[in-house]
Amino acid sequence: MDIGFIGLGAMGLPMATNLLAAGHKIRVYNRTASKADPLIKRGVELMSNPAAVASSGGVVITMLANDAAVEDVVVGVDTIAQRLAPGGIHISMSTIAPATARKLAEYHAESGSIYVAAPVFGRPDAAAAKRLWICTSGPHHAKHKIATILEAMGQKTFDFGDNPGAANAVKLSGNFLIAAAMESIAEALAMLEKSNIDPVAAIEMLSSTLFACPVYQGYGKAIAQQRHTPIGFHLPLGLKDIDLVLKTGVEVRAPMPVASLLRDRFIASIAKGRTELDWSGFALGVRDDAGLPSR
Amino acid sequence: MDIGFIGLGAMGLPMATNLLAAGHKIRVYNRTASKADPLIKRGVELMSNPAAVASSGGVVITMLANDAAVEDVVVGVDTIAQRLAPGGIHISMSTIAPATARKLAEYHAESGSIYVAAPVFGRPDAAAAKRLWICTSGPHHAKHKIATILEAMGQKTFDFGDNPGAANAVKLSGNFLIAAAMESIAEALAMLEKSNIDPVAAIEMLSSTLFACPVYQGYGKAIAQQRHTPIGFHLPLGLKDIDLVLKTGVEVRAPMPVASLLRDRFIASIAKGRTELDWSGFALGVRDDAGLPSR
Amino acid sequence: MDIGFIGLGAMGLPMATNLLAAGHKIRVYNRTASKADPLIKRGVELMSNPAAVASSGGVVITMLANDAAVEDVVVGVDTIAQRLAPGGIHISMSTIAPATARKLAEYHAESGSIYVAAPVFGRPDAAAAKRLWICTSGPHHAKHKIATILEAMGQKTFDFGDNPGAANAVKLSGNFLIAAAMESIAEALAMLEKSNIDPVAAIEMLSSTLFACPVYQGYGKAIAQQRHTPIGFHLPLGLKDIDLVLKTGVEVRAPMPVASLLRDRFIASIAKGRTELDWSGFALGVRDDAGLPSR
Amino acid sequence: MDIGFIGLGAMGLPMATNLLAAGHKIRVYNRTASKADPLIKRGVELMSNPAAVASSGGVVITMLANDAAVEDVVVGVDTIAQRLAPGGIHISMSTIAPATARKLAEYHAESGSIYVAAPVFGRPDAAAAKRLWICTSGPHHAKHKIATILEAMGQKTFDFGDNPGAANAVKLSGNFLIAAAMESIAEALAMLEKSNIDPVAAIEMLSSTLFACPVYQGYGKAIAQQRHTPIGFHLPLGLKDIDLVLKTGVEVRAPMPVASLLRDRFIASIAKGRTELDWSGFALGVRDDAGLPSR
Repeated sequence: MDIGFIGLGAMGLPMATNLLAAGHKIRVYNRTASKADPLIKRGVELMSNPAAVASSGGVVITMLANDAAVEDVVVGVDTIAQRLAPGGIHISMSTIAPATARKLAEYHAESGSIYVAAPVFGRPDAAAAKRLWICTSGPHHAKHKIATILEAMGQKTFDFGDNPGAANAVKLSGNFLIAAAMESIAEALAMLEKSNIDPVAAIEMLSSTLFACPVYQGYGKAIAQQRHTPIGFHLPLGLKDIDLVLKTGVEVRAPMPVASLLRDRFIASIAKGRTELDWSGFALGVRDDAGLPSR
Repeated sequence: MDIGFIGLGAMGLPMATNLLAAGHKIRVYNRTASKADPLIKRGVELMSNPAAVASSGGVVITMLANDAAVEDVVVGVDTIAQRLAPGGIHISMSTIAPATARKLAEYHAESGSIYVAAPVFGRPDAAAAKRLWICTSGPHHAKHKIATILEAMGQKTFDFGDNPGAANAVKLSGNFLIAAAMESIAEALAMLEKSNIDPVAAIEMLSSTLFACPVYQGYGKAIAQQRHTPIGFHLPLGLKDIDLVLKTGVEVRAPMPVASLLRDRFIASIAKGRTELDWSGFALGVRDDAGLPSR
Repeated sequence: MDIGFIGLGAMGLPMATNLLAAGHKIRVYNRTASKADPLIKRGVELMSNPAAVASSGGVVITMLANDAAVEDVVVGVDTIAQRLAPGGIHISMSTIAPATARKLAEYHAESGSIYVAAPVFGRPDAAAAKRLWICTSGPHHAKHKIATILEAMGQKTFDFGDNPGAANAVKLSGNFLIAAAMESIAEALAMLEKSNIDPVAAIEMLSSTLFACPVYQGYGKAIAQQRHTPIGFHLPLGLKDIDLVLKTGVEVRAPMPVASLLRDRFIASIAKGRTELDWSGFALGVRDDAGLPSR
Repeated sequence: MDIGFIGLGAMGLPMATNLLAAGHKIRVYNRTASKADPLIKRGVELMSNPAAVASSGGVVITMLANDAAVEDVVVGVDTIAQRLAPGGIHISMSTIAPATARKLAEYHAESGSIYVAAPVFGRPDAAAAKRLWICTSGPHHAKHKIATILEAMGQKTFDFGDNPGAANAVKLSGNFLIAAAMESIAEALAMLEKSNIDPVAAIEMLSSTLFACPVYQGYGKAIAQQRHTPIGFHLPLGLKDIDLVLKTGVEVRAPMPVASLLRDRFIASIAKGRTELDWSGFALGVRDDAGLPSR
């Protein structure tokens, strides 16, 4: 299939590469053009503006940094929303607010194109390994049509129905659960470390039994060893996502006290100058409060 | 080996039964004598007081409700601490405070007997299936001597060194992490439910991918379905454990804000009369705050 | 002086009435025109659109519900920003975000008019009694020029310098401190009530000694007696203000955990359907959590 | 009247001095005997053990550091509880747990003496100036009998009925409200300081209007200026009191989230080595989290 791809960051590039490997023809756009070099070498066409990747009745995938960036390529005169019409599909794979997703879906509908939400779970290495988990929501027929495209990028797709914001709400929930797990791990390990108990041994035990799953194993060890580089997911993006979670909570009237606590951790991390870390680095704030030194 | 076993509750009875099945000879004590009936039928001797299960140089296992109950059978005149001397071993398997464990270890040492902490992870069904995870700490030679006893009750033993309080601190950390996971799951699912997204589908997705581990699978589903009976672990015991976590935190000077939040949830649950529930039932408080009805 | 006044709600109407009583000539605008009746009877001119209250070099006061409402009358083609030029002054007395104030100040500057922030402390009865406390920030000469206007509405003016957002930040801080005091009062009184101690006697003691000030006396008694009507300040506006506090906190990188807690209380109040209450009504959530009945 | 006085610390010494000035005859005990020197010079008798200050049918005042210290002089063989019998009165003025007060009241009753709770509000300077506020609870006739004694030490007495724990619960509530006010002030001022607004000007405005009361004026300025010495109330005692508040909350089933937050602040302060500060010093933690330097 002919696919336009916008956003060749740490996630977008390996995802586009996998599409290529699966035999799709892609045209790409990225603000910093040089990021497209590895694809250009393989014959991919680089466009000079985002709208140019779209063709009538085609498919455009966006993998951009935040809500505003996605809105920028959709809302306005002569954007992908109009260029995809009639009947083209925008697969929006960034983590954005459910409210933004609903707004964009409406805008596409008015423009004669279709919006499908398809945010993903997984860090850059998972994207490269085609091991992303993809959550979808939007019109059934459109999701059916793009199934093989998603298969080329992920290990499994989970559908959450028609509501265009649903997949994003689930995605945000997942990120919230990960951050909440990191906070609680950090609290437990600080208490153990101050009790003269080896935090690495403790988290190894816990994450090989009750919590034998990727989040506790990966982040648990990182927190126990205070290893927050290289950056898998940039710390300030953690604040962005938790903020989206809380905004959604306000919108639907659901208090989320752990999310509030997490937001304060991220703000404090940034206030303390800890921006060039993986988002797990917010857990250093737990050490600060316990009077433990940070590496 | 000759083993005394004190405490035949929901956990203690299947554990004692497994010891019997493994060929150990046991003498038991329980405050409510009738609980011992299934064992008596199989030839086990029921003693009229806790100290009577102990013999010089032998082994006594305690599986009791709380710190005070364990202290009651150890501290004082003619308790298991003295009866086990010289050289007998008290395997203390309840979830108690690290500070209590240290105190009891000292008392045993003064009395000529040995204290080994061996708290367990797992609910009654895991105890029956011999699938408990056991954390140990205490004198090396004593732990070596009781290894086969522990093997008869659990699927794996994890050691945390000499410090008698260490195993309990790890056990408390584990219970804290479970409760923290439940709180965050409940917050996420309330937000999703109020966004008209099926919470069961969401938790199934999350607990089959990022969180593919027993805690998220079991408790996640229970919370999504508001199913908090039958009681695997009694709600008021959750308050007890979180209180021990916080006490330990104060003692070693490690603030634990998520634990504080959990304590408030448990207090509110009890204040609202929700005592006859599994401890996961505290999550109903999240629904209350979101204005969602509880079954 | 010739003054335009936009926004004749529970606060705006008595404020405009005091201006009139002080001998100022005013023209007014209000979305619901009938609210202006008491002023029209006294010869005040009612305009058909907000911009019409402004005259070149004159003064316009806004007392509107939220940031968007203030932006609506300032930003755009032919608004008060242009009509006041050259040199006219917009006295913005609503509680809005510091960031909004800065944005509006810039817009005015570009349009040739001047923005002065002048949010107030005090409820409708204080407005009627000319007992408002007014916080100002903005260009010195403009504040000098409007001093007598402010005197006609309040008992004292406190200045916070040039930064147009400063007065709003202080105003938001004040509202935050009030809500924080209410939360802590509610927690203390719930604990006392459940200890069989008369909460009214306790708050009377405390608010006649350590806390002998209006906030603890007024709200303290209201909370002790669960009296949250009549509405002095509408509960959903409490959420709006706390949200502005938190947004400002994120913006300047200052975590505010008590503000987060308050936000959750307001969200829960609204989720539970408690919207038609004074904002002190959020304190009922504290009673819920303690299992105490609400009237 | 003949009065025994136990505990000549920063509070006890000026209180005893005021009793002397009012014409009472006092016998004193203090663990560190030299603290009694100023009183001995004025003819006061220093006893070698606490029980020795008591006489049958007399009055003993205790002003000690914590629950354990008060229990030490009451519970046991030949303590003030027995020496005061029959009919003597123990005026217990320390800040202790309501549960401890009830326990001590029972013990006195069994011993034939009477327990009256009379905790005070005020720092050492207020004690010296006879400006303490005193909360009482206990048997009516006993309170009647000691009225003039309390008048010699404070500016006003507030009674909370028969329940011996009531006065302590109110006292703890007051300390909790003070600490809660400090936390919220610190959060507001950090936000303002990071917005380039003078925190001293802001708190002066707020504490001369809405919050024109001693707590906001005194502590507000101290926090704005980061002035946490000299020590009026030792920081670690703040943790003790908040812990008592939370224990009482658990006991009566009343969640107190702000108290939990405060406890974490105190723990963090101690973990960071900030023990030799006035209790208001916990507010430095708010600055830490906002990335603001502390003096």
